Amino acid sequence: MKDFQFELLARDGEARTGVIHTPRGDIRTPAFMPVGTAATVKAMLPQSVRQTGADILLGNTYHLMLRPGAERIARQGGLHKFMDWQRPILTDSGGFQVMSLSALRKINEEGVRFQSHIDGHEEFLSPERAMQIQRQLGSDIQMVFDECPALPATHAAIEKSMALSMRWAKRSKAEFRQQPEEDRAGRACFGIVQGGTFADLRLRSAEALKEIGFDGYAIGGLAVGEPQGAMFETLEATVPHLPVERPRYLMGVGKPDDIVGAVLRGVDMFDCVLPTRSGRNGQAFTSEGALNLKNARFADDAAPLDPDCDCPACRQFSRAYLHHAVKSGEIIAAMLLTWHNLTHYQRLMDGLRQAISQSRLSDWVNKWRADGKMSGDK
Amino acid sequence: MKDFQFELLARDGEARTGVIHTPRGDIRTPAFMPVGTAATVKAMLPQSVRQTGADILLGNTYHLMLRPGAERIARQGGLHKFMDWQRPILTDSGGFQVMSLSALRKINEEGVRFQSHIDGHEEFLSPERAMQIQRQLGSDIQMVFDECPALPATHAAIEKSMALSMRWAKRSKAEFRQQPEEDRAGRACFGIVQGGTFADLRLRSAEALKEIGFDGYAIGGLAVGEPQGAMFETLEATVPHLPVERPRYLMGVGKPDDIVGAVLRGVDMFDCVLPTRSGRNGQAFTSEGALNLKNARFADDAAPLDPDCDCPACRQFSRAYLHHAVKSGEIIAAMLLTWHNLTHYQRLMDGLRQAISQSRLSDWVNKWRADGKMSGDK
Repeated sequence: MKDFQFELLARDGEARTGVIHTPRGDIRTPAFMPVGTAATVKAMLPQSVRQTGADILLGNTYHLMLRPGAERIARQGGLHKFMDWQRPILTDSGGFQVMSLSALRKINEEGVRFQSHIDGHEEFLSPERAMQIQRQLGSDIQMVFDECPALPATHAAIEKSMALSMRWAKRSKAEFRQQPEEDRAGRACFGIVQGGTFADLRLRSAEALKEIGFDGYAIGGLAVGEPQGAMFETLEATVPHLPVERPRYLMGVGKPDDIVGAVLRGVDMFDCVLPTRSGRNGQAFTSEGALNLKNARFADDAAPLDPDCDCPACRQFSRAYLHHAVKSGEIIAAMLLTWHNLTHYQRLMDGLRQAISQSRLSDWVNKWRADGKMSGDK
Repeated sequence: MKDFQFELLARDGEARTGVIHTPRGDIRTPAFMPVGTAATVKAMLPQSVRQTGADILLGNTYHLMLRPGAERIARQGGLHKFMDWQRPILTDSGGFQVMSLSALRKINEEGVRFQSHIDGHEEFLSPERAMQIQRQLGSDIQMVFDECPALPATHAAIEKSMALSMRWAKRSKAEFRQQPEEDRAGRACFGIVQGGTFADLRLRSAEALKEIGFDGYAIGGLAVGEPQGAMFETLEATVPHLPVERPRYLMGVGKPDDIVGAVLRGVDMFDCVLPTRSGRNGQAFTSEGALNLKNARFADDAAPLDPDCDCPACRQFSRAYLHHAVKSGEIIAAMLLTWHNLTHYQRLMDGLRQAISQSRLSDWVNKWRADGKMSGDK
């Protein structure tokens, strides 16, 4: 079994491009991971997700533990086999969804007791349980269990929460190391930096994680509604304190221009529901900016959604067709727009990777911004 | 431009197999036409529909005239281009949906005035308007406008309705013949036999249509809730009066064993929403009969949905996965089960065609029935 290994290929300013080698295949960075919440990237077949250029998916521990259950997926041979995705999978630890989706949470030092948002039954997550579930799923990159406080919050509240997350990170890593060698080989465990938008807390959190030692370092607790400027400032206060030789993952981000700004600040990995969720809501990310296909101005528009794109939505159909499908609530609208949005995101990542490897990222970003590709709804 | 032509290749009892040649490609008969109601076979990309083995799709005049509108589709280059299906399309005339979906219908000799089920706006369909719309869509096989009375009904009521439908058939054909030669070349117009379950009315209807002369003959007004026996008896009273050298199309049918029984009675073409609608509701047609994937007994079933099938649902996933996807309301469940059901239907048609061409249909049907493939939900 090959090891999990991050190979840094080129740097351009703070930005980096490289390859994460894993037994299940390489992950080109900067990487965007489509979200496969409940063992499916919504409205996509797995081979279609791969066709968009995705090297890795994200799976949600919280959703999968509730339905169909981690033990059930383990009996079915693991998440890769269950959902027919043979390449790497990163799983979150459930911490974020417990805070955002479940009811009647009770947090203490041990972990979190909560009620399922599906049927109300009581569940429990702790660092140990979260890592056990990720092992049962067969995840290639397993995230430590953390607490994700809502922002804004006081320095004292964030400090207390960050300190708890650091104690949980230590327990998560200890549990990961207890996995049998044959389960753990080639798999990685990532720590998660917390500390809200407070630079001093981010620094302390990063130091605490490095002390424990992880295969990669995530930045958590962002993309929770704070302004983009605050997110970028927090990255600038955090990334320099992370080990150069390990991948850096900004969780839950984001819009295309969030991703570009974070890559410029040294981030290597991203995940977000935006391309898939938007696709199901009639929104398309294009080389002209974001388009809302519900808009009546597309009803007679014979042009392709994005002339620069070679996905099935753009190759086979007109904007008029997509408008009709969205307005009619047809499933094909979700299928085509999701496919397109994921293709658009992967093309963005490909552009970033190439620009970094050719030391022309600054020019590339200036042109990209001038073309209006970062802009909002038209 | 090639002509529309039906080539009869073999007969076995009353059953026939052949090829309908059209400028847009051949249609192997007996043929099953997936229903592409609103310019999409729900939950499928057109290339996937073709992969299931479909030679022809059905489109609905009623739905398309209301949304996005026939004029709009014509401006976009016709229905084939709009929905990216380059092979033949048969369109119904809207008669059936007007009766089943719309509100506040007023029928007179001229046609039917009704309200859209989408937004309540008033619309009008007549034989002339129905044929004009089908021409705007660019349909390869255009159906006459008819009235579809609900069953059961009295002999007098059905007789009156049938007589109206025959007058409308004559006007539909006249309108079809008025299409410019370049529009009409290679396109066909089918008549529709009406008459409920009354043999004498079916005979009179068939005679009236033959007098007008059509490229094919449909049997309408069935599959509206009558017992299978009544449907088969009506076929036996109708099919012998239809020209041998023209395709025969049983509208809106049906379950696999309805199709087998109708093929045994000389029918060549079918359409039905059952495989697609069932697919969206968690129902699968398999070589073991119909399965309801919602059933908890599939939660840990690692077997493929149907070991005899090579569709993506059966090749890539387990019953446990499909159960999870159905229970979670994931779009992939509709995508996979629709794909499977359409594959199952096309394999049925392929089996029938081969058995007829090898003069072993009776044995084939006996084996098929013994295998329980016609049976209901397990």
